[in-house]
Amino acid sequence: MSPELFKAWSTQVLTSVESALDNWVPESAPAGLGQAMRYASLDGGKRLRALLVQAAAEAADAGATPASQEAALRAACAVELIHAYSLVHDDLPCMDNDVLRRGKPTAHVQFGEAQAMLAGDAMQALAFEVLTPDVGEGAGVPPVLQARLCRLLARASGQAGMAGGQAIDLASVGAALAETSLRDMHHRKTGALLRASVQMGAACGGVPTDSIAWQALSDYGHAVGLAFQIVDDVLDATQASETLGKTAGKDADANKPTYVSLLGLEGARQEASDLLHQALSALQRSGLPSQATASLRALAERIVHRDH
Amino acid sequence: MSPELFKAWSTQVLTSVESALDNWVPESAPAGLGQAMRYASLDGGKRLRALLVQAAAEAADAGATPASQEAALRAACAVELIHAYSLVHDDLPCMDNDVLRRGKPTAHVQFGEAQAMLAGDAMQALAFEVLTPDVGEGAGVPPVLQARLCRLLARASGQAGMAGGQAIDLASVGAALAETSLRDMHHRKTGALLRASVQMGAACGGVPTDSIAWQALSDYGHAVGLAFQIVDDVLDATQASETLGKTAGKDADANKPTYVSLLGLEGARQEASDLLHQALSALQRSGLPSQATASLRALAERIVHRDH
Repeated sequence: MSPELFKAWSTQVLTSVESALDNWVPESAPAGLGQAMRYASLDGGKRLRALLVQAAAEAADAGATPASQEAALRAACAVELIHAYSLVHDDLPCMDNDVLRRGKPTAHVQFGEAQAMLAGDAMQALAFEVLTPDVGEGAGVPPVLQARLCRLLARASGQAGMAGGQAIDLASVGAALAETSLRDMHHRKTGALLRASVQMGAACGGVPTDSIAWQALSDYGHAVGLAFQIVDDVLDATQASETLGKTAGKDADANKPTYVSLLGLEGARQEASDLLHQALSALQRSGLPSQATASLRALAERIVHRDH
Repeated sequence: MSPELFKAWSTQVLTSVESALDNWVPESAPAGLGQAMRYASLDGGKRLRALLVQAAAEAADAGATPASQEAALRAACAVELIHAYSLVHDDLPCMDNDVLRRGKPTAHVQFGEAQAMLAGDAMQALAFEVLTPDVGEGAGVPPVLQARLCRLLARASGQAGMAGGQAIDLASVGAALAETSLRDMHHRKTGALLRASVQMGAACGGVPTDSIAWQALSDYGHAVGLAFQIVDDVLDATQASETLGKTAGKDADANKPTYVSLLGLEGARQEASDLLHQALSALQRSGLPSQATASLRALAERIVHRDH
């Protein structure tokens, strides 16, 4: 996929995701809660998870119906809400105590700790609300698909996934984490939600859980998730805060283990490159048409070769 | 229903709920997260929400199938997980800063603030996980019902429900909240989840959303939810901490508005008594057999006439 085509594709996806989130994250939530939720979830970040959902949905279902398109849009917004809530909680003083995020003051700096925590809590609930439109609220996302999407998202967000990874992260400050433990932590903390994004997109495209395509897309999601984190560590070690839009070098400063501290800069880059190959070969064995997986290929390449 | 019969019924429900939660809240969650989740969710409290789910399910479906029984058990555990997570977050220093809960140190006192917040986050995700068993994990809870339960729970937990109510609560410290605002806050903060408990039970019993029984059971849940909070305020004003298992008089000390400060002690008691009548008359117009709604009647009476 040419850079121009990718740009056009991703712009179109991001426009519909931003517009849907603008619609679904309610300004009207009481006592300033809505403002805090919107501050933390609108117009933010690369929307990588949303792009993965949409790319996987397109890969699985070339002739998408209005219902499957709406399902993919809802899934994309739901994973972005979970991701955004996790950043709000992660930035709190009792966690990473970070003051800068996406180039703006973090939510608790802007709204106070209590409101930020509540906004995160409400964003997690909203993610599941977005996935379960009532009759008449959506273009008819089938309840079977609604349940499947909730199942995938809940498992990726909870103790076995993101929250579990954050608990390991919390316990690992200053500890000499072995490579397998570091991988386990990242597989949960960021990898689980990135893989779930791909799986949720595949589910919207109707891929059955017991198919070869499902396994291959899950493998793609796993590889891309790990690669993302490794590149994150590399950028954190080599880039300035202004480029990243967040405080650089923080993990290393806090004596947290990173892929760079473990594998060295070159070793980490090599590992990311190996994972890109794994992701691309998973797509090849998925049995999906090469044309349909073009966006997934382009995304994997951009994740590994990005500079911020 | 005689006190003996009620005791036998509630003991049976609580035993299966405790046993199911013991099974579903994983000790194995990494880095101590499982212990914190279990500390905050097992063996705790009156389990009023679980009892409401079960009573409503029985009222709606006298000849329950294994699938509807399993659905009701999962729904009961899910609302208890949401309730328990909300207490953990509510007790944190940035919120109510409470150190005593159910006669034990609060979760952050026991495990630290960061772990307590993560445990709460993971418990919210787990609630939706419990509601969406995969094929082979449960007795075959139909996906349509899974989606309906997630829809009800997400709406009751988020900005329009519990989290929204907490935001109003947060903003109301020291403020002269009018009676309508106080009602709105409590309707969201505790009422929404109590009503959702009744609705989720009714959904497990197969009550359609557009039926008279659904509306009547929802009205019952609304009245009982408000009565619960009013009695809570009365007890908070009149009982000692030892009886309550939590710090008494805290809301009044923090200059938070309560029903007692607004209506006086006698006025608040009268209001609770009126709501009990509303709840019972809602059951009468539900069209459900009087025998089937015996547990719901008994629960409403106990909520209003409890002494702790």
